[in-house]
Amino acid sequence: MKVTINCDMGEGFGLYRMGDDEGLMPMTDLANVACGFHASDPVVMRKTVRLAKLKNVQVGAHPSLPDLQGFGRREMKIEPDELRAVLIYQVGALSGFLHTEGMKLSHIKPHGSLYGMAARMPEVIEAVCDVAGQFGVPVLGMSGTLHEEVCKARGVPMVPEFFADLDYDKNGKLLITREHAAVDARAAAQRVLRVLREGKVASAEGPDVALHAESICVHSDTPGAVAVAQAVRKAVDDFNRAAGARG
Amino acid sequence: MKVTINCDMGEGFGLYRMGDDEGLMPMTDLANVACGFHASDPVVMRKTVRLAKLKNVQVGAHPSLPDLQGFGRREMKIEPDELRAVLIYQVGALSGFLHTEGMKLSHIKPHGSLYGMAARMPEVIEAVCDVAGQFGVPVLGMSGTLHEEVCKARGVPMVPEFFADLDYDKNGKLLITREHAAVDARAAAQRVLRVLREGKVASAEGPDVALHAESICVHSDTPGAVAVAQAVRKAVDDFNRAAGARG
Amino acid sequence: MKVTINCDMGEGFGLYRMGDDEGLMPMTDLANVACGFHASDPVVMRKTVRLAKLKNVQVGAHPSLPDLQGFGRREMKIEPDELRAVLIYQVGALSGFLHTEGMKLSHIKPHGSLYGMAARMPEVIEAVCDVAGQFGVPVLGMSGTLHEEVCKARGVPMVPEFFADLDYDKNGKLLITREHAAVDARAAAQRVLRVLREGKVASAEGPDVALHAESICVHSDTPGAVAVAQAVRKAVDDFNRAAGARG
Amino acid sequence: MKVTINCDMGEGFGLYRMGDDEGLMPMTDLANVACGFHASDPVVMRKTVRLAKLKNVQVGAHPSLPDLQGFGRREMKIEPDELRAVLIYQVGALSGFLHTEGMKLSHIKPHGSLYGMAARMPEVIEAVCDVAGQFGVPVLGMSGTLHEEVCKARGVPMVPEFFADLDYDKNGKLLITREHAAVDARAAAQRVLRVLREGKVASAEGPDVALHAESICVHSDTPGAVAVAQAVRKAVDDFNRAAGARG
Repeated sequence: MKVTINCDMGEGFGLYRMGDDEGLMPMTDLANVACGFHASDPVVMRKTVRLAKLKNVQVGAHPSLPDLQGFGRREMKIEPDELRAVLIYQVGALSGFLHTEGMKLSHIKPHGSLYGMAARMPEVIEAVCDVAGQFGVPVLGMSGTLHEEVCKARGVPMVPEFFADLDYDKNGKLLITREHAAVDARAAAQRVLRVLREGKVASAEGPDVALHAESICVHSDTPGAVAVAQAVRKAVDDFNRAAGARG
Repeated sequence: MKVTINCDMGEGFGLYRMGDDEGLMPMTDLANVACGFHASDPVVMRKTVRLAKLKNVQVGAHPSLPDLQGFGRREMKIEPDELRAVLIYQVGALSGFLHTEGMKLSHIKPHGSLYGMAARMPEVIEAVCDVAGQFGVPVLGMSGTLHEEVCKARGVPMVPEFFADLDYDKNGKLLITREHAAVDARAAAQRVLRVLREGKVASAEGPDVALHAESICVHSDTPGAVAVAQAVRKAVDDFNRAAGARG
Repeated sequence: MKVTINCDMGEGFGLYRMGDDEGLMPMTDLANVACGFHASDPVVMRKTVRLAKLKNVQVGAHPSLPDLQGFGRREMKIEPDELRAVLIYQVGALSGFLHTEGMKLSHIKPHGSLYGMAARMPEVIEAVCDVAGQFGVPVLGMSGTLHEEVCKARGVPMVPEFFADLDYDKNGKLLITREHAAVDARAAAQRVLRVLREGKVASAEGPDVALHAESICVHSDTPGAVAVAQAVRKAVDDFNRAAGARG
Repeated sequence: MKVTINCDMGEGFGLYRMGDDEGLMPMTDLANVACGFHASDPVVMRKTVRLAKLKNVQVGAHPSLPDLQGFGRREMKIEPDELRAVLIYQVGALSGFLHTEGMKLSHIKPHGSLYGMAARMPEVIEAVCDVAGQFGVPVLGMSGTLHEEVCKARGVPMVPEFFADLDYDKNGKLLITREHAAVDARAAAQRVLRVLREGKVASAEGPDVALHAESICVHSDTPGAVAVAQAVRKAVDDFNRAAGARG
């Protein structure tokens, strides 16, 4: 199985732009498309789904806590059953656009604070798993967290991912920021290659942490995102070729 | 084909209640379920879909202009292509809940101002038709308006409906109100029977207008809605029995 | 100083109703008016302010976390500085209606989860205090919590209140519920009198807890709220008369 | 009286940016600050008000129809009395930030579709006038339209403005666009000078139209807005100096 690149897409809203979707789509295998709760709106969603179709990119749902003003990056207490409904609504809305474009839903990846909550609160990842199971798609998540443990327990496939442009602490916890800082494209690509080859990355504090990844996430709202994606694309392609030669 | 009763449902929002869905569901054949743009939220939508399933009621989408505060009853200029996206989003979201409950989408009925706009603006009803066509379901609309004309022209089936609890003017135009006034249950039932048998109703100004109906709409936010629905249910059942005996 | 009754008001939204403001206003001294973030909208706010003016009721702001769908009853992580801005916006909006009606802002009382957070998170009550100070009004809060401690430290007056229709645990912590259950009017009035006379109330677990109150809160969305308010009004008037006779 | 430059400011939302407020503020006399209904949020509003204070720029309210997703550029039917409430809410919210910064409200300028509606629907500009009157500030509007006529009739001062970066038709009607196209800075400055000196501008169709202006509007979301503002600033300063020398 080839390592993929996934990218959060369709995060504009009305006249507002966020991320260079056109620039990034050609480097992407899996588009995580915002569903209107942290970003996006019906027009942006349709445009993003069509762009993905044009570039042969698979489309997954990128559902969020209901928090447009906070871009889904403010943690919120939400009952598990309410969360299930909130997820079904968003996945359904995206599926509407996939249906009209003749495409299939590829995966679900929770966005922002919901992603972080799902990594440490069983009831949150359980809700995500259940909805992924109902739509018959895998979850994009992190190895070594509740993402992996709960998906396994519920029989829902999980694709483990590594964030090329975010830091991890020495316990392997992802350090989510409300606005993403610029990263060096070469350094990002090297981090990616090391994770893929050795299963390790240097933490923000220095020591290495172990991480298993089958997909690499590149954020579209990181300054210089296209350069990062190009460098990571090359790294991933090199790795896939070498793995193919070995396999 | 039997005449049906359709009812707008799931129009609560958060802690707010609107309409006695539990009381009306047993009298209903087709539930027009709000999709979060004029009313409803994910929790209310799921609850409404489950209630419909329990009572063997078919579920259609009741999409609206994006206007939660105005309950979709404030007309708004919206580009046809934006409207298509707005409709797909809402129909998709509802379809998410239908999917998880193992149900099929039954129809689409535009809500409030969108319904009125669709009756007189070709580009609006064209957008509704196109989305109904993409989801393979009929439109619930009014005979003698652009609803009928455009659905026919686009090859999308339309089920003509009569509003048991609203007035029509002498040109057959529905008089939509932001808040619905109480109506007399008996009088509503008699109006319904006359429409079904004679294809006529007395307009607000007095003179009869011709109307063809295969479904009767009862609003859940009309004061005394359950009594109206009971009376109309009996009238429709009587009509269907008589029609069956004739057929 | 007389003991007052305060009541959350103006919690409708669009066509949705919440609480019997007309029924409760005559029993109220201080109206805590929703500002559009957990409930209310411009039309509801103006109507509520005008009703208060008509009944000689003082108007304070009842600002909330930004959470209309959750009625401000879902806890949310929010930066203190963002919270200050969120509070100023809401207090300012309400002050707009007070200005056009020739009234003065009376107080600030945080709503729902924000109220609870302010009782235990210093940075939250500090933000509330700072904004109250900037508008020159007291905070309505709870004795024995951070409300009292931080208001005192920042030199902002706090009016301690007792909730006639909610339970307290044995540590004096208010048990906030997303939907309010019915309470017995007589029992509520007796709880109020005991708090005013003895400074004590029976906790949900049984043992008494000490509470000091100068204002009594009656919720308008509790079933039977008007009867509760009438009984509490009588209890408070009796207490005030007796205190006046003693003074 | 000196001619001023006014600029729509604070039109970001959450993480989204719109317009180079920092770049434009030094060239601006009057900032029209968005109030959260078409753009902006509490954090953006406070930041914008503070930036204006720092640069000695006067702050007016830039209220809109409630349409965040459409950036207030979709026309909507709204009852005059509801509109008044919607305006008071927004002006009040902005006044909250002005109050905490020790500033005074300078003026009101309706945004987007509301601006256009106010130029041709008496009940809309009447609502704007009434609210401006209640807050004791002038309206920024267009000469030769209902803006001028109704303000005069209601005794509310109006400052007539000219749009440096938008076209007018041959009847003097402003051609409002959902996204603003780039304009040539030099040409814009020359248009401004001609309007100030001769009271005329070439319409989109060619023929001149008469326009009287005492303030020049530069949009911050026009591509190249800073260069346009610099050129217009110089033109306005030249005109003011010459007028001062003449006066």
